[in-house]
Amino acid sequence: MHFTSEQHLDGGVLERAFTLGDVPGILWTPAAVSEPAPLILICPPPLGLRRIHPRLAGRARYYAEEYGFASATIELPGSGERPRWDAAEQARADLRRAMEAGEPVGDDIIDALVLPLVEKSVPEWRSALDALLALPEIGGPVGYEGGVISIGVRLAAVEPRIKAAGFFAGSLVPAVMFEEARRVTIPLHVLLQWDDEDNDRQAALDLFDAFGSREKTLHANMGGHTGVPRFEFENGARFFARHLK
Amino acid sequence: MHFTSEQHLDGGVLERAFTLGDVPGILWTPAAVSEPAPLILICPPPLGLRRIHPRLAGRARYYAEEYGFASATIELPGSGERPRWDAAEQARADLRRAMEAGEPVGDDIIDALVLPLVEKSVPEWRSALDALLALPEIGGPVGYEGGVISIGVRLAAVEPRIKAAGFFAGSLVPAVMFEEARRVTIPLHVLLQWDDEDNDRQAALDLFDAFGSREKTLHANMGGHTGVPRFEFENGARFFARHLK
Repeated sequence: MHFTSEQHLDGGVLERAFTLGDVPGILWTPAAVSEPAPLILICPPPLGLRRIHPRLAGRARYYAEEYGFASATIELPGSGERPRWDAAEQARADLRRAMEAGEPVGDDIIDALVLPLVEKSVPEWRSALDALLALPEIGGPVGYEGGVISIGVRLAAVEPRIKAAGFFAGSLVPAVMFEEARRVTIPLHVLLQWDDEDNDRQAALDLFDAFGSREKTLHANMGGHTGVPRFEFENGARFFARHLK
Repeated sequence: MHFTSEQHLDGGVLERAFTLGDVPGILWTPAAVSEPAPLILICPPPLGLRRIHPRLAGRARYYAEEYGFASATIELPGSGERPRWDAAEQARADLRRAMEAGEPVGDDIIDALVLPLVEKSVPEWRSALDALLALPEIGGPVGYEGGVISIGVRLAAVEPRIKAAGFFAGSLVPAVMFEEARRVTIPLHVLLQWDDEDNDRQAALDLFDAFGSREKTLHANMGGHTGVPRFEFENGARFFARHLK
């Protein structure tokens, strides 16, 4: 893990860019902590870290200032400056075509789009976790919140160091992930936008139902994909505070 | 409105029993307030105020101490010491019989059980609101939270002084209330127990969908009817704080 730049944000939060092999990432740590901080892994949507940076940095600052949590993210395979691969580009084109035609998005497209992303990225997140937890300023426990819910489902199912997860319910979920969801047993906090133009409400409710966790909470609000109300972000932070402190 | 007794609870909250005509009720007011307090109407479940008193008083104290809200409740028709009526007793017996036999509860039973309760109690809540808002220590705005969701739906649809409502989703909802739900436009905070043994999850989701409110939030948690987690009570109080301050 090599730090490549650092800057001090308002509120005394230290933001450091890093690379881990050829994967770029960002780490935010609270300024003044007396002991190693809990860590939130923030999985970005597949839009590139540069584009999504203001939103992620806002959340990371809130976690640091309000709760003393560190946060970290890494670039997803095929996003930002990272190399594309042909099958993913094809699946993206198929998805766009289906959506523009107003057709249902077939399972084959969803599988081709999401499963390789899960396969490639989950080992990267686990390697990042190894490197992050080796830093003296990071202690744990570890939470995960995520833009690509299938990555989160797989991680929550296989990575015992993740103790709580916040998901944003999306419907582009391969059928196989519903099976993996049953193996997730950590506390979950799931957001659902009731009228999300990009998501299938029933699929999101079915996925929530499938999770094996004894403690899981679904918070549904009106409006579209980007309309999650501010108070739900605060609820999500309180969820992590309950489980990571 | 005649006050019949008063006592000072911990936290400096004043609890006063009252009668309004032949309807008994309870008013809780915060100790030290510089201006008239917002008011939460707390509709009890139909179990009698005496039996449910500790739970209601606990909520009222929290509202008073944390947010400076006054709270009030009245006994439902047919509950506590108030006279029963034959049709309700019959419907209750039919409901018990259906549930013990593991049969679905028919619409006719639900209508016979709930609709007269709504018809009788909604005017009583509105009269109570008149009397409560005439007290110098009560100002408004007014919130409603309720045990019998159909009473809340009707009140929220017809009573313009109620500015926000918290509901506990139950499935013993007459079909006609789904139509009334479309006329509700105030902000709503709806709790759903995902595995509620007394409720039909899909009916609860359908009712949530039916509400006409632009701002409505559904918070679903695991467990049965009485298992609502403490943090959701705090979320509900913050909901009122956002809308009644």
